[in-house]
Amino acid sequence: MAIGDLWKAPLKAVNLGNRGFYDDLVGIGVPTVDLDWKPPARGDARLIGILDRFSGDAGIGAANREALERVNASRPVLIDVGIARDVVPGMTEDTLLHAGPPITWDRMSGPLRGAVAGALIFEGRAKDFAGAEKLATSGRIKFDPCHEHHAVGPMAGLISPSMPVFVVENRTHGNRSYATMNEGLGKVLRYGAYGEEVISRLCWMRDVLAPAMKKAILISGGIELKPLIAQALHMGDEVHNRNKAGTSLLLRVLLPFLLKAGLPQKDLFEVAGFVNSNDHFFLNLSMPAAKAMLECAEGIERSTMVTVMARNGTDFGIKVAGLPGKWFTGPAGIIQGLLFPGFTEADKNPDIGDSAITETAGLGGFSMASALAIVQFVGGEPADAVEFSRKMYEITVGESSSFSIPILDFRGSPTGIDILKVAETGILPQINTGIAHREAGIGQVGAGLVNPPWECFRSALLAFEEKYAR
Amino acid sequence: MAIGDLWKAPLKAVNLGNRGFYDDLVGIGVPTVDLDWKPPARGDARLIGILDRFSGDAGIGAANREALERVNASRPVLIDVGIARDVVPGMTEDTLLHAGPPITWDRMSGPLRGAVAGALIFEGRAKDFAGAEKLATSGRIKFDPCHEHHAVGPMAGLISPSMPVFVVENRTHGNRSYATMNEGLGKVLRYGAYGEEVISRLCWMRDVLAPAMKKAILISGGIELKPLIAQALHMGDEVHNRNKAGTSLLLRVLLPFLLKAGLPQKDLFEVAGFVNSNDHFFLNLSMPAAKAMLECAEGIERSTMVTVMARNGTDFGIKVAGLPGKWFTGPAGIIQGLLFPGFTEADKNPDIGDSAITETAGLGGFSMASALAIVQFVGGEPADAVEFSRKMYEITVGESSSFSIPILDFRGSPTGIDILKVAETGILPQINTGIAHREAGIGQVGAGLVNPPWECFRSALLAFEEKYAR
Repeated sequence: MAIGDLWKAPLKAVNLGNRGFYDDLVGIGVPTVDLDWKPPARGDARLIGILDRFSGDAGIGAANREALERVNASRPVLIDVGIARDVVPGMTEDTLLHAGPPITWDRMSGPLRGAVAGALIFEGRAKDFAGAEKLATSGRIKFDPCHEHHAVGPMAGLISPSMPVFVVENRTHGNRSYATMNEGLGKVLRYGAYGEEVISRLCWMRDVLAPAMKKAILISGGIELKPLIAQALHMGDEVHNRNKAGTSLLLRVLLPFLLKAGLPQKDLFEVAGFVNSNDHFFLNLSMPAAKAMLECAEGIERSTMVTVMARNGTDFGIKVAGLPGKWFTGPAGIIQGLLFPGFTEADKNPDIGDSAITETAGLGGFSMASALAIVQFVGGEPADAVEFSRKMYEITVGESSSFSIPILDFRGSPTGIDILKVAETGILPQINTGIAHREAGIGQVGAGLVNPPWECFRSALLAFEEKYAR
Repeated sequence: MAIGDLWKAPLKAVNLGNRGFYDDLVGIGVPTVDLDWKPPARGDARLIGILDRFSGDAGIGAANREALERVNASRPVLIDVGIARDVVPGMTEDTLLHAGPPITWDRMSGPLRGAVAGALIFEGRAKDFAGAEKLATSGRIKFDPCHEHHAVGPMAGLISPSMPVFVVENRTHGNRSYATMNEGLGKVLRYGAYGEEVISRLCWMRDVLAPAMKKAILISGGIELKPLIAQALHMGDEVHNRNKAGTSLLLRVLLPFLLKAGLPQKDLFEVAGFVNSNDHFFLNLSMPAAKAMLECAEGIERSTMVTVMARNGTDFGIKVAGLPGKWFTGPAGIIQGLLFPGFTEADKNPDIGDSAITETAGLGGFSMASALAIVQFVGGEPADAVEFSRKMYEITVGESSSFSIPILDFRGSPTGIDILKVAETGILPQINTGIAHREAGIGQVGAGLVNPPWECFRSALLAFEEKYAR
């Protein structure tokens, strides 16, 4: 058709972008289709330039394939339980590890401060919150992200020197990761509670639970975590906010070794009862498993794959394989979801915890299509859960070779967030998570859904350009 | 439009039934839609007459509502373990119970004969297959369906006087049901194997497993089975051919009581290991739970709800609430599915076992949409599993108030097969099941999908008319 002929035929329009044009055309009677189109990189000209520059870059493609291959080849194995000061690299008597990117006391949110106080009381270095605050602000305590020590912790993520930690070894690559044991529900340190029941539970965990677990794990010769996660995904877990199957399977795997460990009957009963009563127990193993799988991709030159997503309750931070040692941060989001009875929107702390390491490894929100019953806990409909997983394939390097999603015809879970794809599509990673009360000392108030801030990915991309553009 | 005008407009046709008309119309260029329509009752004029007669019958509606209400109100609780001769009503030293409707030795299939031989060897009444056959054909042994004794058994379903059985009580209605304990996989009695390993396992189950289970269950005060089944359905089980979650949850519930039971360390270790190593262990509890739920609906006048579907390897039989004491049978079907390596179609025995009691209660094939990973075991795609569940709503009285299916937006599972709806729609109940080798002594060769024969429902409907037409 010659261009002049276009105007002779009746006009039919397709509108892209600004909805105002669509409304105007429809207003004057022109049949118009409004395409839900968004410009790449949310219309950010600087980012569009970077995307253009790196589009089809063979080096990035190869680097990301290698990063995903390392993740997929990983074999995280639970090999031991140790005391943090003895086993976590770089831990000193004055170190407190916390979730998320670096932060100082003055910027910490309520639940993180509460957990710091609880940890200092547990360590015998403070008697109460006021004493803990004094010590925490004295300059004598070194606050460090768990992630800087190969460790991860849910919610506040506090690890103090005397706390027992699971030791996970990536048998393929040799790297190790660490996580505390899950305390259960109710008033717990990770949600910022620091009362007597919290401290006495931590003491029991150190004195009874940890030695029993250590014995059982050593007798076992190591417990392979990938098969447990893979099975749990076929049993309605996504191993972030639903760990009922993972906990059940772990208990089944551990049971013969717990029975062989020669524990006093009372200890055996208490330990089995403690794990049994907490469907989230496996979370503190899915997290270090994910950490061990991802960390071995850190430092791959030109890789745009995300290796860390973590929140400290104030900031959200990500790390990128090709930009080792750097955090890219933005403000932690407010979680949308279901609140426990008696709590309101005003009670919610911003997003907190290292548990988004599960999403970073293709689990959690990325595998929600495996865990439809989770919508009863985080809100939404089963169809939403399926859609979240589907969408994540648009921003990931590839698929897991170990974890599959039955409802998507056993497709591998979407794995390895690519900052280029996030920037291009404007789609942010989908995280599901618990909600802490914003004040110290209270605890969990609900669970829901949240995304990282766009800024993390924007600043990571700018840093990538600075390092790799030539 | 006047009728004469019809022929003036271009002809567009909708074809119902015979596909030949559609082909002809399309052949002469008439735009035609072929509607996939089938006549009611598969075109059986006698059945259509019966359906007409009972259509909208208020008495039937009320009876079926009561039947479903009894099922939904049921509370099956595992209360004890006993020896069959002591606890199963009507059991004598010469009684052998088997799966499915009544059958005599001469018509028994290979795996049922093998299991009969194994049971007689286990009871010390025969030394080998030949001796067992001699005794079985002597007239001294009374063969009875499990279902005639409030009992159920998977596959061959053999229950002999010395075998330990779970005792399940329906706390709402007071009725009890019974089932043997699951032997695990490989060479097992229920698949018709009767070698030394089978018999020695049965002896260990009688001497070690059963007393330990009895102690633990008595200490527990009773284990509620409905919550376990409800949770298992949210964890990828349908509790017929997938019982991985149910078994895990059962082990978690039992564990504290097993630890409290004061068992010798060796027994505790063996018992925990035995249950732990068999993901089908829970099947022998989902079955008596389903039986206890359904049996309390037997005898409701005018109810067209099916209370039993069971197969003996030769015949498939159903029972109907309003026609108590009567079996309606047809030939057992051949199962379509996945065969274990090394076996062929020629190895397959026809459908066998009481385990279709799960489907009768809205579980198993009826809840396959809860258990997508099961297609890896029985064949097909995840979408097929969803479709099976959807279809079953067309032939059921209603929905479970206890069991829900996440992928169907937590809709209650389709519950209470209505012979009127089966007849009207021509849709047969969907069963998934294991496949036994057709010869005695071999065992399982695969798993797959099967339907009851149409004849069962046809003859039940004829009997219903005979009893209730006036």
